[in-house]
Amino acid sequence: MRTQNGSASPEAIHAIQGHFGDRLLTLPTHRAEYGKSECHFEPVLPDAVLRAQSVDDVVQLVKFANEYRFSLIPYGAGTSVEGNTIPIHGGVTIDLSGLDRIIAVNSSDLDCVVEPGVRREDLNLHLRDQGLFFPIDPGANATIGGMASTRASGTNAVRYGTMRDCVLGLKVVTADGKIVRTSRRAKKSAAGYDLTGLFVGSEGTLGIVVEVNLKLFGIPETISSAVCAFETTRGAVQSVVELIQLGVPVARAEILDDLQIQAVNKWSKLEFAEKPTLFFEFHGSPASVAEQIEIVSGISKANGGTEFRWAERLEDRNVLWKARHDAYYATVNLRPGAVGWATDVCVPIGSLAQCIDETQADLRTCPVPATILGHVGDGNFHVVFSIDPRSDSEMNIVEAVNKRLIARAIALDGTCTGEHGIGIGKKKALEDELGCAVDIMRRIKSAIDPLGIFNTGKIFS
Amino acid sequence: MRTQNGSASPEAIHAIQGHFGDRLLTLPTHRAEYGKSECHFEPVLPDAVLRAQSVDDVVQLVKFANEYRFSLIPYGAGTSVEGNTIPIHGGVTIDLSGLDRIIAVNSSDLDCVVEPGVRREDLNLHLRDQGLFFPIDPGANATIGGMASTRASGTNAVRYGTMRDCVLGLKVVTADGKIVRTSRRAKKSAAGYDLTGLFVGSEGTLGIVVEVNLKLFGIPETISSAVCAFETTRGAVQSVVELIQLGVPVARAEILDDLQIQAVNKWSKLEFAEKPTLFFEFHGSPASVAEQIEIVSGISKANGGTEFRWAERLEDRNVLWKARHDAYYATVNLRPGAVGWATDVCVPIGSLAQCIDETQADLRTCPVPATILGHVGDGNFHVVFSIDPRSDSEMNIVEAVNKRLIARAIALDGTCTGEHGIGIGKKKALEDELGCAVDIMRRIKSAIDPLGIFNTGKIFS
Repeated sequence: MRTQNGSASPEAIHAIQGHFGDRLLTLPTHRAEYGKSECHFEPVLPDAVLRAQSVDDVVQLVKFANEYRFSLIPYGAGTSVEGNTIPIHGGVTIDLSGLDRIIAVNSSDLDCVVEPGVRREDLNLHLRDQGLFFPIDPGANATIGGMASTRASGTNAVRYGTMRDCVLGLKVVTADGKIVRTSRRAKKSAAGYDLTGLFVGSEGTLGIVVEVNLKLFGIPETISSAVCAFETTRGAVQSVVELIQLGVPVARAEILDDLQIQAVNKWSKLEFAEKPTLFFEFHGSPASVAEQIEIVSGISKANGGTEFRWAERLEDRNVLWKARHDAYYATVNLRPGAVGWATDVCVPIGSLAQCIDETQADLRTCPVPATILGHVGDGNFHVVFSIDPRSDSEMNIVEAVNKRLIARAIALDGTCTGEHGIGIGKKKALEDELGCAVDIMRRIKSAIDPLGIFNTGKIFS
Repeated sequence: MRTQNGSASPEAIHAIQGHFGDRLLTLPTHRAEYGKSECHFEPVLPDAVLRAQSVDDVVQLVKFANEYRFSLIPYGAGTSVEGNTIPIHGGVTIDLSGLDRIIAVNSSDLDCVVEPGVRREDLNLHLRDQGLFFPIDPGANATIGGMASTRASGTNAVRYGTMRDCVLGLKVVTADGKIVRTSRRAKKSAAGYDLTGLFVGSEGTLGIVVEVNLKLFGIPETISSAVCAFETTRGAVQSVVELIQLGVPVARAEILDDLQIQAVNKWSKLEFAEKPTLFFEFHGSPASVAEQIEIVSGISKANGGTEFRWAERLEDRNVLWKARHDAYYATVNLRPGAVGWATDVCVPIGSLAQCIDETQADLRTCPVPATILGHVGDGNFHVVFSIDPRSDSEMNIVEAVNKRLIARAIALDGTCTGEHGIGIGKKKALEDELGCAVDIMRRIKSAIDPLGIFNTGKIFS
């Protein structure tokens, strides 16, 4: 898969070293850290790595990339799952995790401005004393820059939206080395093209994000979590579909299928009933939360749900959501030596039960262990495979299952990815989904990054 | 201001007529209808007008525009206020109001697919029996295509978002005459660049929208409206700022200043106290609405608000919101023979009181009657001037006040337009607001519309 068309030549590396000195990492052990991914993709080493310390570092490196024509791969926490940071065409990885200042918290405006390397858990720790929080929660403790770049969402998206909704503006270093602000801090604007929206989800292919302006929310007066097991996956899914259709403002509604619950019990040493299960969270005033719970309990019961098991204290809620967030690792570790292959699709909510049903039927014929978990309130779910990376046969089987999953979602007028992005894993799927719209994306890429220096070979070839 | 660089030559008109026959309108009386605007801009006649009846009409006209190099100006209801549809460089106006089919209502997915000429009031009439509604309400009975193109918002945006949030996808005829779908119907997606977001708000400069996929919402169980007068504008504004900061999910929170209330009383024959006033609407379950009302009453009282005057019955609510929607005409008609000049800015909510205060002080020195009204929950407000179009001196005065207003909003890190768009009226303001980001917009325009056929001269020169 690797070509050299984004590689940094020895002269380029020499020139960059002349500017950055020892801060440019060139040892294979260091580069190896940045060439792998959380998932099943084969590692590819970058030619060098710069751990950026300032916006000026970014600007300088972009200038070198222009002069010597190499690819620049922005890197945050490395938690993406579609190979989004693997330097498949060579080039220099720029680690932005050192740009981790919280620049401003504008509490009366309900927003903040942060550098891209800030991690979401650190941001929330910082905000807590002011009664504020940033809701987007993709599970991993990702960086805000990475989350903006993949248009991340996660468990709270059903109520608070995705990064598309929660990024108010960006500061970006563009291909010509300029620092561009995509919008101002107003909550809405009709001033020209929505550049913020264009950069969010562009996976580092249009520029390097050096500042992010985020919407914030007040920490809800009441937070309550619950677990409810169901006889069937369809019953669980149908419950969430009904509560969305009723407009109940549930904050989280996550499904874990029976195998996923088994994996979670084993990994997190818990004792949930090993059945398809929903994890809920309710946010609001005491009266509003009570009302939501009453409606959701009724719907769940009618769809074959058991009694709710409550987690009201912070510690208990943390145990619950820690288990949910570790679900990926729980699945991967169903077999020793396995790696994870995580995929995600998203369909219109009325077709979700059908899509999950058909996927489960398909998985029953799949010899590779696989779990389903997902953000049912958005019509979005994941399949995680625990795969033997040395087995070509397993890789081929999973690839075929994944292809069928994507085709199924697209046939239901859904998308090949709700929140992981395209990276290198879903480029063909993107063409299948959007056809000639991808040509427009290519034109935009050429217009904004004419030399193709930014994260070469991602999203489309 | 007019140049000929987008004009359709006599040969072009002849060729188009050869295809469309009498459906191409060329009489000055017909063309005049499409050359004017709701506002103070001087009319400019298009060279011809096509009332499109089908997507194929659009595709054919785009092909002619390519061959003969003229500008195409998409037109819906003509209710935009920044000259967004005035053919300043000549060309052919394409009236899309005949493309008015509601193609599908997917009630279980909470979305619908409509042609661009559907008007929002007609859509809501159609949806009502299914218990659904489309919340975006810019006041005017605009077309959905026009609302998408200007990224409209309006009174419900504080709770339901703007067109940016409520458009799930578009079908667009691009410059090469292709029909492109920007996304599928899933509620969220991370599949490549957000083309939907790019086309929403692009004011017809990137392609012609021929289908819109919209999010829908269930009609709330309880709807309650109220009016509350305040001693000071600051008290009214501060009330809304506080309730937003508390996270109260109010559906509408509109301010009308004292002169605006005078104008409304006169125009709509009502008897509101002639003081700065808030119009509220609350949506939700009975318990949730009761809770919201209790909080909002308390905050309003603490900020110098009087008792709430309620409108709970549908008829009474309609009277209230009809008066609010007619506020623009009420202001314009403060003087016989006057025209309206409507401007809007949006600032971070913590700076809203300051921005309105300073604007009021400025207006006190302005001899042209002007009212303030706005969507305070979003930090967005309008100033409407009742201007004598024959008076250069009045035009100059208002232009200067508007410039100061925009500079004030930008200085507070806000935007020169929250919802009207740039059109021809705010091109300089856009440069002031976003600087070199506008160059990126220009590059995108050139990449997607290389011959510059779509709505030439709008947003930027």
